[in-house]
Amino acid sequence: MFEAQAHRAELLEKIEDFFNRKRYAELRDLLLPMEAADIASLCADLDEKVPVVFRLLPKELAAEVFVELDSDEQELLIHSFSNAELKEVLDELYLDDAADIVEEMPAGVVKRILRHCDPEMRKSINEILKYPEDSAGSIMTTEFVDLKATMTVEDALKRIRRTGPDKETINICYVIDERRHLIGLLTIRTLLLAEEDDVIGDIMERNLIAVQTLDDQEAVARALGKYDFLALPVVDKEDRLVGIVTVDDAIDVLQEEVTEDIEKMAAILPSDKPYLKTSTLETYKARIPWLLLLMISATFTGQIIASFESALAAATILTAYIPMLMDSGGNCGSQASVTVIRGLSLGEITFADFFRVLWKELRVAMVCGVTLAAANFAKLMLVDRLLFGNTMVTAPVAAVICGTLVCTVLCAKLVGSSLPLLAKRIGFDPAVMASPFITTIVDAISLLIYFQFASAILGL
Amino acid sequence: MFEAQAHRAELLEKIEDFFNRKRYAELRDLLLPMEAADIASLCADLDEKVPVVFRLLPKELAAEVFVELDSDEQELLIHSFSNAELKEVLDELYLDDAADIVEEMPAGVVKRILRHCDPEMRKSINEILKYPEDSAGSIMTTEFVDLKATMTVEDALKRIRRTGPDKETINICYVIDERRHLIGLLTIRTLLLAEEDDVIGDIMERNLIAVQTLDDQEAVARALGKYDFLALPVVDKEDRLVGIVTVDDAIDVLQEEVTEDIEKMAAILPSDKPYLKTSTLETYKARIPWLLLLMISATFTGQIIASFESALAAATILTAYIPMLMDSGGNCGSQASVTVIRGLSLGEITFADFFRVLWKELRVAMVCGVTLAAANFAKLMLVDRLLFGNTMVTAPVAAVICGTLVCTVLCAKLVGSSLPLLAKRIGFDPAVMASPFITTIVDAISLLIYFQFASAILGL
Repeated sequence: MFEAQAHRAELLEKIEDFFNRKRYAELRDLLLPMEAADIASLCADLDEKVPVVFRLLPKELAAEVFVELDSDEQELLIHSFSNAELKEVLDELYLDDAADIVEEMPAGVVKRILRHCDPEMRKSINEILKYPEDSAGSIMTTEFVDLKATMTVEDALKRIRRTGPDKETINICYVIDERRHLIGLLTIRTLLLAEEDDVIGDIMERNLIAVQTLDDQEAVARALGKYDFLALPVVDKEDRLVGIVTVDDAIDVLQEEVTEDIEKMAAILPSDKPYLKTSTLETYKARIPWLLLLMISATFTGQIIASFESALAAATILTAYIPMLMDSGGNCGSQASVTVIRGLSLGEITFADFFRVLWKELRVAMVCGVTLAAANFAKLMLVDRLLFGNTMVTAPVAAVICGTLVCTVLCAKLVGSSLPLLAKRIGFDPAVMASPFITTIVDAISLLIYFQFASAILGL
Repeated sequence: MFEAQAHRAELLEKIEDFFNRKRYAELRDLLLPMEAADIASLCADLDEKVPVVFRLLPKELAAEVFVELDSDEQELLIHSFSNAELKEVLDELYLDDAADIVEEMPAGVVKRILRHCDPEMRKSINEILKYPEDSAGSIMTTEFVDLKATMTVEDALKRIRRTGPDKETINICYVIDERRHLIGLLTIRTLLLAEEDDVIGDIMERNLIAVQTLDDQEAVARALGKYDFLALPVVDKEDRLVGIVTVDDAIDVLQEEVTEDIEKMAAILPSDKPYLKTSTLETYKARIPWLLLLMISATFTGQIIASFESALAAATILTAYIPMLMDSGGNCGSQASVTVIRGLSLGEITFADFFRVLWKELRVAMVCGVTLAAANFAKLMLVDRLLFGNTMVTAPVAAVICGTLVCTVLCAKLVGSSLPLLAKRIGFDPAVMASPFITTIVDAISLLIYFQFASAILGL
């Protein structure tokens, strides 16, 4: 499977060759059996040949490829289109795809697109563009099958046969009343398995889950995944059915949101462009704000060290264990925070679980801390002292280091698990409370603990 | 929407109340309109009441709820079932769900399940269980609609009406020849929109994407998302159709794999249990191996500090900036590594892009490094020296710190972006090369650079 990917280089060479020898019919035969997504991915390396390739494809496949291209490639292609060609492509597009494309284009291109799509589509695109980014309304399509409760199964099947070709999906049909209120739904399976004279109102499913136009797209996508639906109906404030969100769009939303979460966890401002398409400046802008902020915060940790300068000068050996303490604290904290962040975003944990989470982390921290301290104590006394003969590593010094380790792990786990929950509670994005942020806090805490232990045990 | 979640506490109270007053009919009426996934999520808090709730539900809904429960809850419930009840539930299950459940149960329960499901299902479950975990075969279902190329549309619709109720999906039908080789597919839409006497072989789609039973489940799920399919056919080594993977299972796989990646990135061994269901010991076991390994590695960083002890004693001010340098390096490295890891797992980056990635990171690192160094230089001279009157912060000291910063950022970005790519190349999981691992390496590098600069500029 996935041959298109494995033989990418080979395919590109073949295409190049057909091009040079102007064997367009053979090129067409090569592309025809491929999936749209695979042709689109090849287009990324075809540059100025894309418009030619595009004209070789049957218009339905061409439109499918168009949808799968990156927005810069779409823009270039639109510029190369005659008005007639643009109209042809637009006629083949599903409404939600057209709206997605329009959203990404500069104003001039948008005007040209809206001028060349049919009035019905223009109206619907404008409708969808009104909804805020990341809302259910912005990812829905208005091309769904609607039925009336009074229809018979025969009527319904006729209606589907008549209007089906233009609908994004016919797998689920929605039943509305005369004021377009959503009152039920039917899968195509139910319809096919029913008798021809059954009445829709009698066989439809009345227990509905619907989303509102302004609901967050991530919540909608999660609901689709959770309930194993192929589509979710979208209603407006008056409960009128205005569109549906299909499962293929939900998968895209889930992928995007995960990428965003992961980026936030790594202290990067999220962007929705693929990595290799982002310019150096854009990548820089996404990364530098957190780097600056975290750098400034880390200087507080430095202040702590500076204020204990005399203690460190008296026992220079202590300096050598600062990285180990800081790193271990950071790692423990990030384990806890990342676990909680993912749990929150999967809906497995809510703020109501605050004390359960803390209690669990406390116990885990105790065993982790003791294990690390024991391993470290053994290493200090056997390797550093006996093997390498470092006489500065005395039992009291080892006690300071290992005591600090236990307390640091404890603090790290508690801070790491509670901050994402608190962030969620006050309406912040918990993903921001991940490793880098936690590390900076835990660094400071671990040093303060270290010097407390040092002055208590070593009397510095 | 999502009312079941919002009113969870209220609902649980109501259920409790109906229970106490033995109002089972009212309890049933409360539950009937709810989605199976929501009832299952309530069950987590109903404990010993679950079997009673279960018996109140119509058997179809009961089976759907059963599928959505956690495996411990399923096990408890199976223990409470009479043999007749167990058989009833099993009869309602889809095959792939039954196989999933069997996989999670202890041997005794598995035996009991296999004894009570019908022989056809027993055979199929045993078939699916043979495939390795995480393979396409292990998540597929064998309940799909198969058609022959010689059938007319009318024949096909009849066959679907007859066999449809037991199939997981009828939205896509697969066409096989007499040796069960997959030769085409048809959506239900194509079937419905065709004429009754059209022949399947003429209207079916012949360009197929199929996966093999042993393909990785994540690749299969990604393909479903990429091509916007509702199901993918699974074939054996002889290209015979043996099952299909449906999009709802693909979403679950994608979610699990993302959680696993995120856990690995945070230096946690992945587990597939929800956080709050994991025991302290299990969480400990998942977290301690990396903590120990990283702690030991961090001691090398300590060795570097120890070996420059005399330099640090001569210029104690340098110690105060160690945390800032280590943290900034770690953050820069983790930004790069996490970006590359995510790009790899989305298929946006491959090893072939190695030098493009490095070249991009090099440029980003240059601008990030210079920005951080400039900001830091200003802060050192204006805040630390002028404002706080720290006379030890001289221009040469600031030069050492800022020079180190630029070089550290450069190394961090290059190490952070190249290690995941190299890991992928040699067949390791790139996710392991995330922040904690990179941080440990970058810490050591940044200190070595620091002391080089210090000895060069300050002559220590």
